[in-house]
Amino acid sequence: MAKIQPRVFKGARDFLPSEMIHRERITNIMRNVFKKYGYAPMETPAIEYLNVLAGKYGEDADRLIYKLNYKTGGKDEAALHYDLTVPFSRVIAMNQDLVMPFKRYQIQPVWRADRPQPNQGRFREFYQCDFDAVGTYSLLIEAEMIAIISEVLTALGFKNFRIRINNRKILNALVQFAGLTADKTQDVCRSIDKLDKMPWDKVAEEMSANQIDQAAIDKFQKIFSAGPLTINDIETLTAQDANFNGEGVTELKELFDLLEMMKIPRDNYCFDISLARGLDYYTGPIFETVLPDHPHMGSLSGGGRYDKMIGMFSGRDIPAVGSTLGLDRIFTAMQQLEMMEDEKSFVQVMIANMDDEARSYNLNIAQELRSLGINVMVYPDSSKMKKQLNYADKHKIQYVVIVGSNELKNEEISVKNLVSGEQQTIKKSELANFFSA
Amino acid sequence: MAKIQPRVFKGARDFLPSEMIHRERITNIMRNVFKKYGYAPMETPAIEYLNVLAGKYGEDADRLIYKLNYKTGGKDEAALHYDLTVPFSRVIAMNQDLVMPFKRYQIQPVWRADRPQPNQGRFREFYQCDFDAVGTYSLLIEAEMIAIISEVLTALGFKNFRIRINNRKILNALVQFAGLTADKTQDVCRSIDKLDKMPWDKVAEEMSANQIDQAAIDKFQKIFSAGPLTINDIETLTAQDANFNGEGVTELKELFDLLEMMKIPRDNYCFDISLARGLDYYTGPIFETVLPDHPHMGSLSGGGRYDKMIGMFSGRDIPAVGSTLGLDRIFTAMQQLEMMEDEKSFVQVMIANMDDEARSYNLNIAQELRSLGINVMVYPDSSKMKKQLNYADKHKIQYVVIVGSNELKNEEISVKNLVSGEQQTIKKSELANFFSA
Repeated sequence: MAKIQPRVFKGARDFLPSEMIHRERITNIMRNVFKKYGYAPMETPAIEYLNVLAGKYGEDADRLIYKLNYKTGGKDEAALHYDLTVPFSRVIAMNQDLVMPFKRYQIQPVWRADRPQPNQGRFREFYQCDFDAVGTYSLLIEAEMIAIISEVLTALGFKNFRIRINNRKILNALVQFAGLTADKTQDVCRSIDKLDKMPWDKVAEEMSANQIDQAAIDKFQKIFSAGPLTINDIETLTAQDANFNGEGVTELKELFDLLEMMKIPRDNYCFDISLARGLDYYTGPIFETVLPDHPHMGSLSGGGRYDKMIGMFSGRDIPAVGSTLGLDRIFTAMQQLEMMEDEKSFVQVMIANMDDEARSYNLNIAQELRSLGINVMVYPDSSKMKKQLNYADKHKIQYVVIVGSNELKNEEISVKNLVSGEQQTIKKSELANFFSA
Repeated sequence: MAKIQPRVFKGARDFLPSEMIHRERITNIMRNVFKKYGYAPMETPAIEYLNVLAGKYGEDADRLIYKLNYKTGGKDEAALHYDLTVPFSRVIAMNQDLVMPFKRYQIQPVWRADRPQPNQGRFREFYQCDFDAVGTYSLLIEAEMIAIISEVLTALGFKNFRIRINNRKILNALVQFAGLTADKTQDVCRSIDKLDKMPWDKVAEEMSANQIDQAAIDKFQKIFSAGPLTINDIETLTAQDANFNGEGVTELKELFDLLEMMKIPRDNYCFDISLARGLDYYTGPIFETVLPDHPHMGSLSGGGRYDKMIGMFSGRDIPAVGSTLGLDRIFTAMQQLEMMEDEKSFVQVMIANMDDEARSYNLNIAQELRSLGINVMVYPDSSKMKKQLNYADKHKIQYVVIVGSNELKNEEISVKNLVSGEQQTIKKSELANFFSA
């Protein structure tokens, strides 16, 4: 058979143990924090019917959905999920007997047929770590989510991160305030969303191209190129115009009060009128996390309230808030900022393979250590001792057990400590004591 | 917008927390055992180029690969991985600097466009929990894998399971012994593989349809419908015919010796000449686990040696052994046999929402408990107390913290224990003591 060129799918990656050990540590920290706030594990399939996914995210995103070559064009056409929020909404609609409020987390890969940018942690296959709560309008949920993001990133060792917070209701009110009809809202939000990557002029051009009139653009310019505005600035604005719906501002003031009550460090979050979030489904507070010192790394987390999406499936609105922590963005940032803790082997003991006569004796030692909960590697081949010790060293295994004919005869074990370099010989009967101590 | 019918992709499933908690427990047990034997975590993408996957499994399996609607027909055509063994082989070929022997585990979903049979735990999207070792011909690896399967299934509570063991080298020798050329081997193996679902007559018919001559079929009949043969029976057979290659028998005798040295309970495994495994890539010992009392549940695990596959990618053979534990088969079997442990909430404390004035006070309590590592749910809405207590009860949360105006005034906390029914009032300053005790 001809040799097949081994290639990884473009925009996807293999994770060898040296990376995977760090990724497992990151997701374990997340799981623990999610559970601390009452979020339970859940999963949905990678494959969804296309009509479940399409039409929820907005046109740009819809184009990035990977379709399967399966019943193409029919009602059973299928695709890979683009995020975990839409499938979760489907689940809620299908399980209306769930006791509300229902809080779950979900850690799974998602797929987007996007242009990969590995340096920015942008891939075609990547993990989202979502946590959502449905069945309540309480802003306590938003506060809790910001607390979770803050706690996870702090536990991972991030020193300077900023959770930007805004409210779609404020952006909606601004669209109205600028004299536009509500159907322009998504266009405006999608343009505003680009402000962290484009200067105001370019954003204004895009708005103009989308038939947003100059008077409105001028009004937006005052707000979005004015430098950082506070919630109070926006409140002042609303006070000037009776048509400006102040609900969004009121909500954010309550949310910021809650964050203070929860003692989230004040530097970890801020109000940011220019945060819009790209997806169509948000209806209330929205948030996104950046590293101010490393803006090119993009957002490490995003989320917001989406009170209308479940209704698309169930015919009855159910309030919901969701957030995602981007494992791959976080992992890439931690790699680039050299935040990974030193890798240590999860294997504590290697049993060398010195003497075929000792096979049974060695396997006996291995099984005894394993029964004590110790991770043990038995070297399978009778290679040269130097090669075997080298193997243990490369894998950072601390102890090597060596049994030669003397040890075998005397029911003993030689233990070499590769960290200290010491070697000592103990009775086999002392094995448990030696390694439990 | 018109309501969209919410549907789950046929052959796939949602896992709500009530199920997911059990699945997490199962995979955690597996991870611990894998690590005890020195296997490290690894992951590969779900999407692979089609030419990486195709032509490795055999014709029947190749048809079940889900292709993406992406560069159809070209060299970049892509698909969802059918198993984790072929992608793992690709990784080894691409990373030849890995220190051998290299041992990894991999827990990920795989996809097969098969006819779903949920009662038998057969789905289109399901999890495989693979562990493989490459770079050694030592049969210690096979022994270790059988030890791992035995340890995992025992830890999960299975009382009666059987790891059937055979060797492709024995089957290859039998094909020769029956007077057939080597190119008939895959056909014979695929027919033999059906013996646990079909009577001998049907299998013989299939062989006949595949141009296997009657003389050979008669020879096979003596072996495969003779009732359980031992390794010694096969050895006797080889002794009768100088052309019968005895290597497979010699290997199995060594493997069984190793299993005895490792003290794997003798009832957990057996030699079974009729085990063939359906996939083309096996070259040596093969194994598969069944529940003898529940044969309809299919195999809970399978695996074997595949010394030739990595060479398809690297041009140079590298020995390898792999095994998979089928999470969904195991999960379905445990559900049907009512082996799941009673669900207990991971949330220890719920803070009731009684008095808006107490918001800050309550959040303070919640954050203090969380800092102690306690999982806390803050009830977000000021619903009726009965509804809130009912929520805690349904979620099996043991403690409910209730703060009314009295507690607030006196810096106290009322704690209701839903298991004992007792309620007591403590000082807020005693909080940590009360819940740590």
